[in-house]
Amino acid sequence: MNFQSLFYPKAIAVVGASRTPKTVGNDIVKHLCTQGYQGNIYPVNPKADELFGRKVYPSLNDIPENIDLVVIAIPAKFVPGVIQEAAAKGAKAAIVISAGFKEIGNHDLEKELAQVCEQNDIVLIGPNCLGIINTENNMNASFAGLMPEEGNVAFISQSGALCTAVLDYAQDLGLGFSKFMSIGNKASVNELDLIRYFAQDPKTDVIAMYAEQLENAPEIIKVITEINHSEHPKPVIVLKSGRTEAGASAIASHTGSLSGGDAAYNALFAQAGIIRANCIRELFDYAQILARNPLRQAKNVTVITNAGGPGVLVTDEIVSHDLVMAKLSETTKAKLKTFLPEAASVNNPVDVLGDALADRYEQTLQVVLEDENTDAVLILLTPQSVTEVEATAQVIIKLQKTAQKPIVVSFMGKGTVWPGVKLLREQNISNTEFPEPAVCALAAYSHYVDWTQAETEKPLYFDDVDRQAVAKIFAEAKKQGQTSFPEAQAIEIMKAYGFPILESAIAHSPEEATTIAQRFGGQLAMKIVSPDILHKSDVGGVVLNFTAKNAAQKYSEMLATVASHQPNAKLEGALMMQMAPKDGVEVILGVSKNPGLGTMIMFGLGGIYVEVLKDVNFAFAPLTRADALRLIHSLRSAKLFEGARGQAPRDIEALVECIGRLSQLVTDFPEIVELDINPLLSLAQEKGSLVLDARVVIE
Amino acid sequence: MNFQSLFYPKAIAVVGASRTPKTVGNDIVKHLCTQGYQGNIYPVNPKADELFGRKVYPSLNDIPENIDLVVIAIPAKFVPGVIQEAAAKGAKAAIVISAGFKEIGNHDLEKELAQVCEQNDIVLIGPNCLGIINTENNMNASFAGLMPEEGNVAFISQSGALCTAVLDYAQDLGLGFSKFMSIGNKASVNELDLIRYFAQDPKTDVIAMYAEQLENAPEIIKVITEINHSEHPKPVIVLKSGRTEAGASAIASHTGSLSGGDAAYNALFAQAGIIRANCIRELFDYAQILARNPLRQAKNVTVITNAGGPGVLVTDEIVSHDLVMAKLSETTKAKLKTFLPEAASVNNPVDVLGDALADRYEQTLQVVLEDENTDAVLILLTPQSVTEVEATAQVIIKLQKTAQKPIVVSFMGKGTVWPGVKLLREQNISNTEFPEPAVCALAAYSHYVDWTQAETEKPLYFDDVDRQAVAKIFAEAKKQGQTSFPEAQAIEIMKAYGFPILESAIAHSPEEATTIAQRFGGQLAMKIVSPDILHKSDVGGVVLNFTAKNAAQKYSEMLATVASHQPNAKLEGALMMQMAPKDGVEVILGVSKNPGLGTMIMFGLGGIYVEVLKDVNFAFAPLTRADALRLIHSLRSAKLFEGARGQAPRDIEALVECIGRLSQLVTDFPEIVELDINPLLSLAQEKGSLVLDARVVIE
Repeated sequence: MNFQSLFYPKAIAVVGASRTPKTVGNDIVKHLCTQGYQGNIYPVNPKADELFGRKVYPSLNDIPENIDLVVIAIPAKFVPGVIQEAAAKGAKAAIVISAGFKEIGNHDLEKELAQVCEQNDIVLIGPNCLGIINTENNMNASFAGLMPEEGNVAFISQSGALCTAVLDYAQDLGLGFSKFMSIGNKASVNELDLIRYFAQDPKTDVIAMYAEQLENAPEIIKVITEINHSEHPKPVIVLKSGRTEAGASAIASHTGSLSGGDAAYNALFAQAGIIRANCIRELFDYAQILARNPLRQAKNVTVITNAGGPGVLVTDEIVSHDLVMAKLSETTKAKLKTFLPEAASVNNPVDVLGDALADRYEQTLQVVLEDENTDAVLILLTPQSVTEVEATAQVIIKLQKTAQKPIVVSFMGKGTVWPGVKLLREQNISNTEFPEPAVCALAAYSHYVDWTQAETEKPLYFDDVDRQAVAKIFAEAKKQGQTSFPEAQAIEIMKAYGFPILESAIAHSPEEATTIAQRFGGQLAMKIVSPDILHKSDVGGVVLNFTAKNAAQKYSEMLATVASHQPNAKLEGALMMQMAPKDGVEVILGVSKNPGLGTMIMFGLGGIYVEVLKDVNFAFAPLTRADALRLIHSLRSAKLFEGARGQAPRDIEALVECIGRLSQLVTDFPEIVELDINPLLSLAQEKGSLVLDARVVIE
Repeated sequence: MNFQSLFYPKAIAVVGASRTPKTVGNDIVKHLCTQGYQGNIYPVNPKADELFGRKVYPSLNDIPENIDLVVIAIPAKFVPGVIQEAAAKGAKAAIVISAGFKEIGNHDLEKELAQVCEQNDIVLIGPNCLGIINTENNMNASFAGLMPEEGNVAFISQSGALCTAVLDYAQDLGLGFSKFMSIGNKASVNELDLIRYFAQDPKTDVIAMYAEQLENAPEIIKVITEINHSEHPKPVIVLKSGRTEAGASAIASHTGSLSGGDAAYNALFAQAGIIRANCIRELFDYAQILARNPLRQAKNVTVITNAGGPGVLVTDEIVSHDLVMAKLSETTKAKLKTFLPEAASVNNPVDVLGDALADRYEQTLQVVLEDENTDAVLILLTPQSVTEVEATAQVIIKLQKTAQKPIVVSFMGKGTVWPGVKLLREQNISNTEFPEPAVCALAAYSHYVDWTQAETEKPLYFDDVDRQAVAKIFAEAKKQGQTSFPEAQAIEIMKAYGFPILESAIAHSPEEATTIAQRFGGQLAMKIVSPDILHKSDVGGVVLNFTAKNAAQKYSEMLATVASHQPNAKLEGALMMQMAPKDGVEVILGVSKNPGLGTMIMFGLGGIYVEVLKDVNFAFAPLTRADALRLIHSLRSAKLFEGARGQAPRDIEALVECIGRLSQLVTDFPEIVELDINPLLSLAQEKGSLVLDARVVIE
């Protein structure tokens, strides 16, 4: 997609330009004309002559030159026609503000719009959107009135109305944007297209978005993993609404799109390395810290504070967010002691006391920045009567310029600390009004840095699978209209993909029983094979718990017993089976489809606890080894697998292999819509795992 | 305690008054003299003549009249002496600003201070505090410079330095205080004393506090339960730091006090009906909503918004916080349809669309307030170009005056919506900058209202316990220096308190075996009783799984078998025991002591899951029935007890009884420091529960 005409047009036409103030068609022309955009602007309206000092044209056709971008705010049904006209005038980009498409059920009109754009090679934003802003060329092609500061954050919103509030919040924070996008119904251009563009955009360092529904998880994972491992990683922060069923149905009612379960989005974000903001404030806190600090390790945090209580509060937060209170080196402590008062604490949190002036903050920050055990610094300030709010801000600004470590600040309070806060914001220092959110943001930042440093892995792949065998089973089933595969058939499919199964084979003589039993090893069971016997156990046709040693004897005994009970039955032999070990932990391994996003592998604690504890995790196929390990280790009951209370640790490698084989199976056969291995028995280390039961459903 | 002299003194002396600006001793005199306090002020300093227009006295003794309150800011070691002098001048209250007591290890000096105050009947605030403010008489007896607005929130802080930030935040929110207290080391007056006072204070409706450590959970529970069930319930909101081990150790290092585990505080807050704020912002959000709305049911929430996206975000929050999206009545929807545009949504969230002016908000709010299914209303506003920010605020202010339902507002944004926000704050309407925290606050509010309406209950009590028997066991043990009671003895203690135990008795004949078996019922086991036999099972001396029907036969068989193996052994009979049912769920029931707070009962999922899932809850003894039910039903695995996946529901009443009996036991015998019933077997409904093993340790 060519976004040049969209973001850097030399000539823009606005179709639906209006003379009536406070209408969309009036606002857009006003914002284009009055906020510094230097290209040519052509308002189009058959009934007007002039608007904001620009000549108004009766139609696109009347414009004297070719245009690059057309902005459209007229009734929906006329939009596709106007796109045709715009194409004839050379337009390569369109922003459709008009509502009245998918969101009210007009799916066909929306499809038509997308097609017309595609045929004419036009990049389409919208319909049903607020427009876009490019701060680099002061182009506000939207009906949001506030032109944001220039900055390094690209913002994308699926909700138009939210945008005006976002611009307002950002202005107060001094947070600038590179591009600001309302993308509406996403008939053509969606978030992923824009992310791809922003990954290359030199003006953008951070991508933030509000999303209600996303599509194609595997592609999102691929693109963002690439960005996170590129030379210039750009964090993607997503505020995703519709976490709850009620929220999802509210989305459906106002945008006409289905969002799907939240577990799928959590899986997607974890796999892709997307930072999830849980509320609007977090979106800003995360954007701020990432936009205002270079990407550096931030695990070990040192706190500098002039108040004990807030120091304790952030200590709690640091530990709760999986960060670490840095252990200051002895050298650092000794240095701090040379200038801090005796009552001060030289341990972390470093309490510089309520009477600390700017110089004491400066000396302390200097020493802490040099501490070898400190990755990041959090500075707290409460406004005591002697506190030098502005001078302290200046000191932080000065030291941050050369600091190789992230610094986050919370000047606590409002009016009293405002002069300092203003300085910090102007100089791009991350400051939060309350101290706890600073930690939360630091944790997101640290987590992101970890992602960029994690090794990239290929999806798990096994070359010993028999893809043809499964293809054949499915092909035959489809011929007969069969979609569901009960245990016996499902086990065949599992076998073909190399899953560990309890072995079974039919013995036709005592000698063969021994041979099979020796091959299988361990504890065995045996069932009579006869077309004439329905209830095997009633006639003594089931024998449990024997080994190879007495297999022949058990075989003979069983056949004799059955024969005595049912003399006329034709006895064909005995089905010999391995017995499941008793010390296995039951887990569940399955498949779950998310409409739009893709196919997920589900892994969790099995048995009664599936329902009671709902301790399951998801990841989209295909999975890497890291994904598989995350499925296991982020269970609440993970300790059960790592060896709890004297129980042997489980064979994690065997679980990873099962997860990987399932990932490969569902990737090879997208027609699989349901698949449950329940239970999968997880055995002790080096003992493997065992599929005890499975069930498969195809489309 | 008589707080009159503390809060409403006619004459105040300030010992340690200083001429040096920006010192504590100077600030306090300045704040008393310049912020409107009308009583007499006597600065005391041997080296000064005049301060802020007031005569300075060389000593307390030189003051011409009696004083009510003395504020002290001189080196710690001189403080007790000054208190004596102040007492001689009639002082009945003292605020000790001076540091240098417990927090640096000077426990003796702190004890001396408290004693001197007690002997002289002086109410003591501090030491090591910032002072106090009473807005009613404009008395700022602190070194915090900002005099807050008068309001209905009483604030108590264990951290002095935090206070200045709190005053600053509150000023911005327009949130007023009745009394504002920094209580420092709490050598005498603590939070609970002040809560008791504020419960009676007509100026106070809400009590908010920052606490690092509290004491005496049972008393706190008693006092606050009373307040919550009084005619004028006053919510208590606590921001408790030291949630994590690292946080608790940060507290210890700066205040010298031990905080103890956070589970104890969660238990305390749930039992007492205290609202826990998890961060400073929440403290303000909760204080605001509770201070600005009458206490009414708020479970069913209706959202009015001019933006779809934020509507979805708060829908998620409402559902996640156990509130309900109100189902608007058909009448309400019909009424809304008469004036809302077609594209608007008349379902909840009610989307009045981006072009809504104040009148549309007014009509909608009016209709929603009348809706019979709506308990509370959340109003969202994003600043679109036509939005009437101030007029909409005015409309809300007008309707709130007569509304019988709580209304919370979020005008989203900063500068653009500020004129409206200002109006809302001035008129005491709860407004949050971001929409999600408004829901969180509404949930806290709703939860509190539920507490005030819950029935009050007496602690669980059983009159069939044999207190003397346990007293005797403990007395004998103490005599012998025994503190630990292994299974057999522990079971005796359990028996005395009426816990259900597996029955056992010795049979001396086949007939007696039958009689006993009939009495016990169910599945039984039997072990040989003989002084000569060590390994019972080796000689056939253990028989499992029989019933009364064949008890006599099993008895005879066992004795014969044992006799044949060991002809010379003296056989005295058989120990008959009930066998534990197989379908029980193992739980753990125990006791945990928190230094300072008291004794807690612990209840949770037993077996391997204790360690893996740590799914346990706590409550302080003595427990009510509601407390016991909460212990069970707020487990993550609660479904296991309520009947999951075909399993029969457990006998909840039997569990409540066991919890109650344990609560009574540890209340009767405070010397019990450890007690574990593990496992306690929870059986199916009406089948009871069974103590299988127990362990007791006393001091």
